[in-house]
Amino acid sequence: MSILAVGSVAFDNIVTPSGRVDNALGGSATYFSLAASYFTDVRLVAVVGDDFTAENESVFKKHGIDTRGLERAKGKTFRWGGHYLDNLNEAKTDFTDLNVFEKFQPRIPAEYMDSKFLFLGNIHPTLQTAVRSKMQHVRLTGCDTMNYWINGSRPDLIETLKLVNVLLINDGEAKMLAGETNLPRAANKVLAMGPQALVIKHGEYGATIFFREGAFGAGRHPFRAPALPIEEVKDPTGAGDSFAGGFMGYIASQQQWNREVLKRGLFYGGVMGSFAVERFGTERLQSLTREEIDARFQIFRELTHLE
Amino acid sequence: MSILAVGSVAFDNIVTPSGRVDNALGGSATYFSLAASYFTDVRLVAVVGDDFTAENESVFKKHGIDTRGLERAKGKTFRWGGHYLDNLNEAKTDFTDLNVFEKFQPRIPAEYMDSKFLFLGNIHPTLQTAVRSKMQHVRLTGCDTMNYWINGSRPDLIETLKLVNVLLINDGEAKMLAGETNLPRAANKVLAMGPQALVIKHGEYGATIFFREGAFGAGRHPFRAPALPIEEVKDPTGAGDSFAGGFMGYIASQQQWNREVLKRGLFYGGVMGSFAVERFGTERLQSLTREEIDARFQIFRELTHLE
Repeated sequence: MSILAVGSVAFDNIVTPSGRVDNALGGSATYFSLAASYFTDVRLVAVVGDDFTAENESVFKKHGIDTRGLERAKGKTFRWGGHYLDNLNEAKTDFTDLNVFEKFQPRIPAEYMDSKFLFLGNIHPTLQTAVRSKMQHVRLTGCDTMNYWINGSRPDLIETLKLVNVLLINDGEAKMLAGETNLPRAANKVLAMGPQALVIKHGEYGATIFFREGAFGAGRHPFRAPALPIEEVKDPTGAGDSFAGGFMGYIASQQQWNREVLKRGLFYGGVMGSFAVERFGTERLQSLTREEIDARFQIFRELTHLE
Repeated sequence: MSILAVGSVAFDNIVTPSGRVDNALGGSATYFSLAASYFTDVRLVAVVGDDFTAENESVFKKHGIDTRGLERAKGKTFRWGGHYLDNLNEAKTDFTDLNVFEKFQPRIPAEYMDSKFLFLGNIHPTLQTAVRSKMQHVRLTGCDTMNYWINGSRPDLIETLKLVNVLLINDGEAKMLAGETNLPRAANKVLAMGPQALVIKHGEYGATIFFREGAFGAGRHPFRAPALPIEEVKDPTGAGDSFAGGFMGYIASQQQWNREVLKRGLFYGGVMGSFAVERFGTERLQSLTREEIDARFQIFRELTHLE
């Protein structure tokens, strides 16, 4: 079933120990959409400037991503520059030029209104709430956020979380949101804010999904998926958004979304994250096949499953 | 089959956010032996002082641990004090009184010489090498070490590693030993130093075992076991030694030690580590049943296994 993705499309300048790239197509909605496109139909809502070319747009179209919601505004596309020279786990921002993204007001084409799945990328929580409220047919909403909103727009974020089924954040964000340093206790506090499930991403150690009691079927035991030990991480940019794309894309491709489907989604999230970091920018995500994805899913299974 | 454990027996003063305990029976060989005793016969080699009572020794005896190798020296038993008030993942040492442990020279009783399994706890690498060299019937040797030896006694440690089948260390130790920040690359460098398998412990994120090509059966894909998300870690002291006890104890209880046995051992390591931290000192490790251990093994399986 179709998934609507709202977020940023950007041009990135990235420096890592493996090299550098300038003006690479990036942004949270880009990584998410490409990753999800291997599983289901994706509809994009984002804004770009007049420097965004038909060639840039063709990257989405080649993957069947619906770009009718890709607004073109006067001015330049969002640009971000960052490096990972000291620590591959954390980007140091060199510059952030919001450009047309600064005044982004998501506009949802009429043709998108029947979407059953929604992913709210990392934008202002008030915009996330507005999008969710407009989408009357959505059955499952995934949501990302970051420290900037947790600290600076907490009341707005709390409202958004009431409307969200699955929140995807990392360890530090979960602890900050909950005001709690113990991870399972932090997870319980976040679940009490609204989401039925909480995915906490641990970077190179994988991810854990925590369930609210009774949500997605019986039991509330958490579930852990691994990350692949990778000898050369070329560029960590977009790993989290690619994870979300694999997770949500897989779930949207299923006929029901119970606990077992979410668990498998967690594995597919790890799979797409592991591909994303193998090359700079979205290069690897642009060239995958479903066979490669399922082969790696099998490796993830062997990495954690006893006979 | 019997496993010989060499290491420290100590009295600990521990402060955590959950409370404090003074003069608790501790030390690497204590945690290891207790954890391993639920799986196999354990023979202890360590040194204590004249403040070590028959009641202290009875803790070992109740678990069938052979204490004929527990030497009594003139002076006080090793004492350590530490706290975890800032960070449950890292102990801050308040004091270290080596006492009789300072001159520890492991003496192996004749009755222990037929041991098939050996665990070299965290002592000077030269002592580890000496013990390993004496034990002619050993089929599998596990070994622990720490930053202190990696930095300060590197050439001695390199010699020890040539004699070791499985090294168990944490992320930081592996990276320091290899001089390499990427974990799988660090693992390959450590495996090239001698061990056929390397267990890297990730604390609350579980552990990964890396295999040398062809060791313990075909393939060299690593394997990951989870840690249990625990809402209240009362006292992290001894978690790593308890992990090693569960891992080595389970392996020693099997008729063969192939890749699959080591994988299951990694799960049992996580299980014993998760019990250890639930109470102060060795309290929880003293009161377990095999049924509780296997029930928790099942929880670990459900935490990571897809249907």
